[in-house]
Amino acid sequence: MTPHPFDTAIALALQPDGTMLGATSPDYWNMVGPYGGITAAIVINAVMQHPALIGEPLALTINYAAAMAAGPFRAKVRPARTNRSTQHWLVELVQTTAEGDENLTTTASVVTATRRDTFADSDVPMPAVPAPADVARVDRTAAGVAWLAHYDIRPIAGDVPRQWDGQVADSLSQLWMRDNPPRPLDFPGLASMSDLFFPRVWLRRAVRVPAGTVSMTVYFHADGAALAATATGHVLGQAKGQGFRHGFFDQSGQLWNEAGLLLATTHQVVYFKG
Amino acid sequence: MTPHPFDTAIALALQPDGTMLGATSPDYWNMVGPYGGITAAIVINAVMQHPALIGEPLALTINYAAAMAAGPFRAKVRPARTNRSTQHWLVELVQTTAEGDENLTTTASVVTATRRDTFADSDVPMPAVPAPADVARVDRTAAGVAWLAHYDIRPIAGDVPRQWDGQVADSLSQLWMRDNPPRPLDFPGLASMSDLFFPRVWLRRAVRVPAGTVSMTVYFHADGAALAATATGHVLGQAKGQGFRHGFFDQSGQLWNEAGLLLATTHQVVYFKG
Repeated sequence: MTPHPFDTAIALALQPDGTMLGATSPDYWNMVGPYGGITAAIVINAVMQHPALIGEPLALTINYAAAMAAGPFRAKVRPARTNRSTQHWLVELVQTTAEGDENLTTTASVVTATRRDTFADSDVPMPAVPAPADVARVDRTAAGVAWLAHYDIRPIAGDVPRQWDGQVADSLSQLWMRDNPPRPLDFPGLASMSDLFFPRVWLRRAVRVPAGTVSMTVYFHADGAALAATATGHVLGQAKGQGFRHGFFDQSGQLWNEAGLLLATTHQVVYFKG
Repeated sequence: MTPHPFDTAIALALQPDGTMLGATSPDYWNMVGPYGGITAAIVINAVMQHPALIGEPLALTINYAAAMAAGPFRAKVRPARTNRSTQHWLVELVQTTAEGDENLTTTASVVTATRRDTFADSDVPMPAVPAPADVARVDRTAAGVAWLAHYDIRPIAGDVPRQWDGQVADSLSQLWMRDNPPRPLDFPGLASMSDLFFPRVWLRRAVRVPAGTVSMTVYFHADGAALAATATGHVLGQAKGQGFRHGFFDQSGQLWNEAGLLLATTHQVVYFKG
């Protein structure tokens, strides 16, 4: 069976020195570097492949320090602190330049935890939206943006503006998403979907300006069993901008499965020009 | 002039090896370790004291890996990547145990950036609330919790439940806050205030359970000049829980100054028992 392109893109090979080797995938390319979501998935995969892992991902912060070049990269993964039921990981992705120098492209921290049954509830119920089958799929293409073809995206509200007319609007987007072709949901897949929202400043201003994520934080609320049960169902994503100022904006978002379970919450701060 | 206890608590002395030495403050103690906000302020201060600093804080993620013991600690501060207008920092706080071992208590990443004037707006306008002078100050004390006395806290909505009766409620809190005694606002001060909300699970459940922050992320929207202009005015804080499950919950919050400027957005994931 041919592996899913997502699995090829996040594949890592453990080296004798404890680092892990991977390579960027043309399938998830985004103009000047890999799609940020796939890099987040690689970080999660690196921690989950580590022999010392305890538990499952709870929190991820990834800092996009520099664009990754097409080609191989190395993941340095360190369990900085291991407690009884939580573990604190530090991850760095580096590449070797043509001059033989080490180029740090990404820093990240991941908290893993053993989950147990407790009081469970949500203060962000899934909004009332039409079912995925009742929302038109948008096959969006853009020059140099390969990753879009690997997602089934069904915008419900707050889609990319059709007219770049500078009309200020609310920055809320809601959309159904899943891998294309479908792929059973897991932590790397969910990490990647957490970055799937186009820049809020485009929606807020209806002006298309260069923008790039600087740092993203994802909190995972569902355990691996709940992700497995979500299988290849669609995931509802919602994101809204908060502050826009001094060349940066932030967004806050949530992801639910079709059954209405809150899978993850996601936040990011994004550079924008103009 | 006697320094403000906050400035004493976050003071760091640069060592010849590039690390910085500090000591926990009894003024900001919180039961089993320092108040998480003061540790966040120490991390921000460490980066801002570093000779290689470019710009001002934009994003902070702090991971509370283990409780700090009362006494000295060392900050290891590394500019992992310096770009033209952004800089990516990694910070670790360590203590030396009685056995001479190094004990890692805290990991953090900070992004600093040179800010410039751009399109500026907010999609989270300050809620309509009474002015600080019209809200009663609550002098709350709890055994072993020294830090509360160093904040002027004026709850508007969603205060700590008066009856622990297990009634499920909305987890939204709004409050005015400032340092006590007043202290001009700056990035360390704002970082500390970003952690000032009591555990959302107490409000949601009206059940007082042990809880502790695992990881906090703060995005700074105001520049240093806007913080200086805020001076010793009160800061409006708002926070709401999102998901509660498997022994962890997250919250999302915002902080504004009295003029309605969005100063920071803050998120955290918190361990809870039961």
